Amino acid sequence: MRMGVLGSGMVAQALSARLAELGHDVMIGTRDAEKLKGWQSSNQRVNIGSFAETATHGEMVFNATNGAASLQALTLAGEANLSGKILVDVSNPLDFSNGFPPSLTVCGTDSLAEQIQRAFPFTKVVKTLNTVTARIMVYPLEVAEGDHHVFISANDVDAKAQVMKLLKNFGWINIFDLGDLSTARGTEAYLLLWVRLFGAMNTGMINVKIMK
Amino acid sequence: MRMGVLGSGMVAQALSARLAELGHDVMIGTRDAEKLKGWQSSNQRVNIGSFAETATHGEMVFNATNGAASLQALTLAGEANLSGKILVDVSNPLDFSNGFPPSLTVCGTDSLAEQIQRAFPFTKVVKTLNTVTARIMVYPLEVAEGDHHVFISANDVDAKAQVMKLLKNFGWINIFDLGDLSTARGTEAYLLLWVRLFGAMNTGMINVKIMK
Repeated sequence: MRMGVLGSGMVAQALSARLAELGHDVMIGTRDAEKLKGWQSSNQRVNIGSFAETATHGEMVFNATNGAASLQALTLAGEANLSGKILVDVSNPLDFSNGFPPSLTVCGTDSLAEQIQRAFPFTKVVKTLNTVTARIMVYPLEVAEGDHHVFISANDVDAKAQVMKLLKNFGWINIFDLGDLSTARGTEAYLLLWVRLFGAMNTGMINVKIMK
Repeated sequence: MRMGVLGSGMVAQALSARLAELGHDVMIGTRDAEKLKGWQSSNQRVNIGSFAETATHGEMVFNATNGAASLQALTLAGEANLSGKILVDVSNPLDFSNGFPPSLTVCGTDSLAEQIQRAFPFTKVVKTLNTVTARIMVYPLEVAEGDHHVFISANDVDAKAQVMKLLKNFGWINIFDLGDLSTARGTEAYLLLWVRLFGAMNTGMINVKIMK
């Protein structure tokens, strides 16, 4: 499948490399191709493009840009290029303007995922993977042999099912369907706990398991 | 030990009954004693008092009032009556003004626990138990035989240790020390995910386990 990954940071790199490893035709989209040249030399199956080229390339597109800049990046990617497609939003509305730990640019009454969905009404936004670090996103078995949960939120049931299939290919065993896209308010706000767990444990190789 | 529990709702009732069961001398504090008469008839070991009487009674005091009204309730309890004591804050800054699911009255840059600590600088505020429903707070073994985590945040290390001991008496096996009181920003924000888990699972008898 043709995959487009918007972003050039750790998350975008991890997603792109893993998607290519799984046999997908991947383009990673950035405003600064130079930045990715070194990384690409060991990831030659991944092509580099602009945001717009990457959105056009992908049958499924990932938003792995900095949450604070996501709406702007997606606008550069182009509404027409994203129209009708699944956009897997793995970003978080983190506000680092006062350093670490971050706060959120939106909390409780709205979410970044919903902001994106409103701005791109013809795109099927699926929120997932934003509650774990890049490595766990794509190699979930590396923490507790996969005995932990990833959450998924979306308004479009078919789009959600497609992304769940991809998550299983990444290795996810426990996928928790929270419901519609407004439930992303919960997973985005969870980041405020995540950064404290990270602070206390000194590692990002952690996740939660829902117990009942 | 003399325990004071501020509040008259489900959480205050559960804490009071359990503390009495464990042999403590418990007073539950309310603005409306009539409301608790029926409950008290089957919990006769618990005395009913005003907020101020309850704060005075307790060597350790619990804030189990509605988060939106906590600062006002604690003011009625009286700064002098709370001075030098441990205040276990189990409340959440939930804003139900737009119905369910709630948003938060404070998020990311501050927490209700810190607001309380600033308003009562001579009281040792310990935030804990706010991430689980009343029944699990005091009978944690009823979910997954206790195989899940409760979090604790406080600036005063000795106060934190005392409350951890009490949590163990409730049955808690896994107590996660997040650090100072600012880490309550994380556990309070987690409620936005909790209400979505509750919505998806149709039960509050759930909790998270931290996996690594």
